[in-house]
Amino acid sequence: MSPARRRGLGLEELLEGIAERKTRALARAVSLIEDQDPLRDQLIRRLYPSIGGARVIGITGPPGAGKSTIVDRLAHLLRQEDQLVGILAVDPTSPFTGGSILGDRIRMQRLYTDPGVFIRSMATRGAMGGLARATLDAVDLLDAAGYDWILVETVGVGQDEVDVVRCVDSVVLVTLPGLGDDIQAIKAGIMEIADLFVVNKADREGSDRAVRDLEMVLSLEESRDPRPPILKTVASRGEGLPQLLDELRRHQEWLRSDGELERRRRSRLRLRVENLLKERVLVAVDRVVGLDSTLERAFADHEDPYSVAERLFNAVGASGPREE
Amino acid sequence: MSPARRRGLGLEELLEGIAERKTRALARAVSLIEDQDPLRDQLIRRLYPSIGGARVIGITGPPGAGKSTIVDRLAHLLRQEDQLVGILAVDPTSPFTGGSILGDRIRMQRLYTDPGVFIRSMATRGAMGGLARATLDAVDLLDAAGYDWILVETVGVGQDEVDVVRCVDSVVLVTLPGLGDDIQAIKAGIMEIADLFVVNKADREGSDRAVRDLEMVLSLEESRDPRPPILKTVASRGEGLPQLLDELRRHQEWLRSDGELERRRRSRLRLRVENLLKERVLVAVDRVVGLDSTLERAFADHEDPYSVAERLFNAVGASGPREE
Repeated sequence: MSPARRRGLGLEELLEGIAERKTRALARAVSLIEDQDPLRDQLIRRLYPSIGGARVIGITGPPGAGKSTIVDRLAHLLRQEDQLVGILAVDPTSPFTGGSILGDRIRMQRLYTDPGVFIRSMATRGAMGGLARATLDAVDLLDAAGYDWILVETVGVGQDEVDVVRCVDSVVLVTLPGLGDDIQAIKAGIMEIADLFVVNKADREGSDRAVRDLEMVLSLEESRDPRPPILKTVASRGEGLPQLLDELRRHQEWLRSDGELERRRRSRLRLRVENLLKERVLVAVDRVVGLDSTLERAFADHEDPYSVAERLFNAVGASGPREE
Repeated sequence: MSPARRRGLGLEELLEGIAERKTRALARAVSLIEDQDPLRDQLIRRLYPSIGGARVIGITGPPGAGKSTIVDRLAHLLRQEDQLVGILAVDPTSPFTGGSILGDRIRMQRLYTDPGVFIRSMATRGAMGGLARATLDAVDLLDAAGYDWILVETVGVGQDEVDVVRCVDSVVLVTLPGLGDDIQAIKAGIMEIADLFVVNKADREGSDRAVRDLEMVLSLEESRDPRPPILKTVASRGEGLPQLLDELRRHQEWLRSDGELERRRRSRLRLRVENLLKERVLVAVDRVVGLDSTLERAFADHEDPYSVAERLFNAVGASGPREE
């Protein structure tokens, strides 16, 4: 039985609690999304007509760049204007190390008492690869619940996280001085899609150099309109954060005036549909032939992965009418 | 037409060149694997009966930890014993930044002249998510070609890279002193599966602390047998590398004596089959209904991703006999 139903909370009650932005209902809905609860599909389907109003911002960058501090500061600034803020921290940290839970608790102590803020770490237990799916479902959830701004924080390396970053409206890449060549490895796939660059901890030595490095890398791009701004911040003291928020607002306006927002949300739908199709094919194969036993035999027979995949795919009848 | 065929190199010739470890044939085969060339399936199927002999080592860790230097040093040590060494650097760096190509060239200058070493960066152009698939195919390729050791180097964050690390025989996690709490974010999902820990740049301040931190994190694990060793190295001067190689050999022996090698290779097959199934379902959907046009309409109709995915999945007839 699903966790939501085990506690006697049905879909209708859950939807009601979400509409009222009740923390317990929202938290339960996120857990249900993470756990691939059977209620999940229905939940997202019912919420979907209400989505589209939130400004979805991705904050990404290497560990230690100060993403959490920037997110918290932005949240405080937005709260001063009575904007409702949802924060999702995409955290690939494993249950074993428990990093996410600790960090989450510390942050909760500061923001949890404000009913206008919902904050949550996203993690997936068990099945890997579902983190992007779960995070994008959670964005829908908070959007439908009426949060004005949704800040999605992620380390931004790897498929799941790149998927998430490709699905937000505005992407902020946070770096710090002195990262040197290491930034090459971190920014993989993110550099091209970042809309705003931030050099945080700008009171440290090397911040001008870091800005110049970014300018140089950006100048290699033949044309990007608008040119992404590069900002310096010292998030721990709140310096540069109002400017960042201004730039985010400017970017959001541009998105809406240019048709770019629609283009981005269309690619968000595409990525989500693709991920769901991948999830479904594995479920179907397992139901029809039993994945474990089939793989056991294939391994014993030293069968190659391509032959096994072809056989399994045909077994679920997924060849379709027009396939050769 | 596929690149391999365009240059008049058929499957048989390619297989012949691979068996003789001709650099051109190997490089072409890797490109064909990366590009999802139609010849790819046949290639892996034909090579598969010859695989299984190589020792496949994953070297992972944050940017700047010195993974490449460790890999190069290990390769040199192995070459002194006339072992054939294949090196695959999993590189999610985008074509835009071009970091991988540069790094590759510098390394090639040192090792390229040795015919007993094959070195290659793995990257995927276009379709994301295929990096794990391509890398594991390339491991098969080098294994079948007769390389004794295959060293797979990866930053080790994100789904694709974690997938790769889960598919090697022995996993080495490289860290460095002074990483502090940042290691929490880097080691995501890797800590639990690392077989050997290395604190590189151990001549820097804080190396004892780094070892203690690792020991503490490992002590949280209830039982792991064998307990993963923690080694200090200064790879730039070759210090600690012979010890690392000894430990790797010891781990390889344990894998073979314990049945663990078989367990790991079974899960490698599983992951690869799953990835191929995911690839296939998207291809099938696109053939049958045309993914672009369907998504265009779905977006215009504000249809939710779950409904779209269900409709598309049913369209390719992938419901299978026993699905409800």
